[in-house]
Amino acid sequence: MRPKRFSRHKNQYATARGKAAGGKVYIYGKHALMEALRHAPRVIRKVFLARDMRLPVGRQGDTEMRALLEKHKIPNAQLAQGRGTELVGRDAAHQGVIFTMDPASLLISFDDFLATLPASGSAKIALAVLAEVQDPHNVGAIIRSAAAFGLAAVLIPQHNQAPITGAVVKTSAGMAFRIPLVTIGNVNNTLKILKEKGFWIYGLAMDGKTTLGAEVFDAPTAFVIGNEGAGIREKTLGACDVMLSIPMHERTESLNASVSAAIVFYEWSRKHPEAL
Amino acid sequence: MRPKRFSRHKNQYATARGKAAGGKVYIYGKHALMEALRHAPRVIRKVFLARDMRLPVGRQGDTEMRALLEKHKIPNAQLAQGRGTELVGRDAAHQGVIFTMDPASLLISFDDFLATLPASGSAKIALAVLAEVQDPHNVGAIIRSAAAFGLAAVLIPQHNQAPITGAVVKTSAGMAFRIPLVTIGNVNNTLKILKEKGFWIYGLAMDGKTTLGAEVFDAPTAFVIGNEGAGIREKTLGACDVMLSIPMHERTESLNASVSAAIVFYEWSRKHPEAL
Repeated sequence: MRPKRFSRHKNQYATARGKAAGGKVYIYGKHALMEALRHAPRVIRKVFLARDMRLPVGRQGDTEMRALLEKHKIPNAQLAQGRGTELVGRDAAHQGVIFTMDPASLLISFDDFLATLPASGSAKIALAVLAEVQDPHNVGAIIRSAAAFGLAAVLIPQHNQAPITGAVVKTSAGMAFRIPLVTIGNVNNTLKILKEKGFWIYGLAMDGKTTLGAEVFDAPTAFVIGNEGAGIREKTLGACDVMLSIPMHERTESLNASVSAAIVFYEWSRKHPEAL
Repeated sequence: MRPKRFSRHKNQYATARGKAAGGKVYIYGKHALMEALRHAPRVIRKVFLARDMRLPVGRQGDTEMRALLEKHKIPNAQLAQGRGTELVGRDAAHQGVIFTMDPASLLISFDDFLATLPASGSAKIALAVLAEVQDPHNVGAIIRSAAAFGLAAVLIPQHNQAPITGAVVKTSAGMAFRIPLVTIGNVNNTLKILKEKGFWIYGLAMDGKTTLGAEVFDAPTAFVIGNEGAGIREKTLGACDVMLSIPMHERTESLNASVSAAIVFYEWSRKHPEAL
């Protein structure tokens, strides 16, 4: 069953990468634009606003929006009626606000990220490492929870992994603009380098031998989150120091990937309140 | 802002109720059907199977599926090519398996549920009370997490609340067939009755005065989960004994409703391992 699932996933990644390959994705919603304007204006290429959003009507959000657009010299154009649905789909509540960004500009390199880490292993740091997470909503939700519970960054592989898209940014509730997103090559090589830097590598798995509550997290920590269906690949499992499981009622087979990640991040933050 | 949001929500509920009003919803996916066949066969009205699912090919799942369909005398028909997409939409991965059910048959009455509770207040019991949760995916995810962390039931108001639909059952990963779903009238009246039965009522709110980790949950517990945007209504806030908040990093405004619920349920189960 596994090879079949993975070939299906690979097609999905390819499609998603294809969309991003042009170097431009459409992000929608007023909240997303305000977060981008406030925290990562450099990533915004062009803003499309519905007619009533463009008027200087003096509403709080709009005034700040226009001031920030002018300050950062970001080009904006009118969003023609019906064009929003065309650009981002019927299910996207764009609220008359759409902007284009280059998702690559939101990502920092692994080397640059490593340079920001303190030389001595600090126990206060935790990272999320995505390993073939397929659903953009899970990716966005994981970014949102990682930001909420004080994680230092989310590491995102270039291959076999849902990339940063509009849906990811939207589901992250703007947190994609606030927490460092680090682009990495091979997950296993990355984990090897993190180990050399003093990190402990925790894999999340239903059958993990260590229950979450029992772990103290007294070293720099990296949490590996695997594929929604197949979990963490065997090769990556071998790179994990500890496999963590969340105690559950026997009637349940599993938790949603982003829910498990959030609970693990919460438990880490409970033991590291100084990170909040 | 609040009245506007709520009028929008009310329309959505009306649409969702309208669909369910015929007393029939379409549920899709093999996993959902197997969970229903194993744990709640009475709710299934009719099963539609793609041609290759109907053949007695001897695959494990299919053999058990056919045996259970026969055992419970559930009518089944062939799912014509293209009909699946027509019934459940293009985004639904139905896997050639669709069935109709009456969602009302999945719900038990509040009186019947109360009759199952032990006479003396037992500290081991926790309930989730939905209070104007709008997104069916959040409702499904909350049902899934409630089942995972050993809650006794999910209470679902008849009005101003996303009802049980195919998307809810699908997102619950079949847990809608496993954990008691209790239909209630007015949330505030329900909370009043629960209080008389010895329950403590906990509301989830960003600005809650009690941090989650500090609470011991030594009485029967009801968790109230409010609307995604507007939170818990003021009248319902007044019925809560304790307002719980989850400590978060200052860069984050909020967590997803189903993520907060899952974290609160997890924390409760951590303090009541006997419930798992």
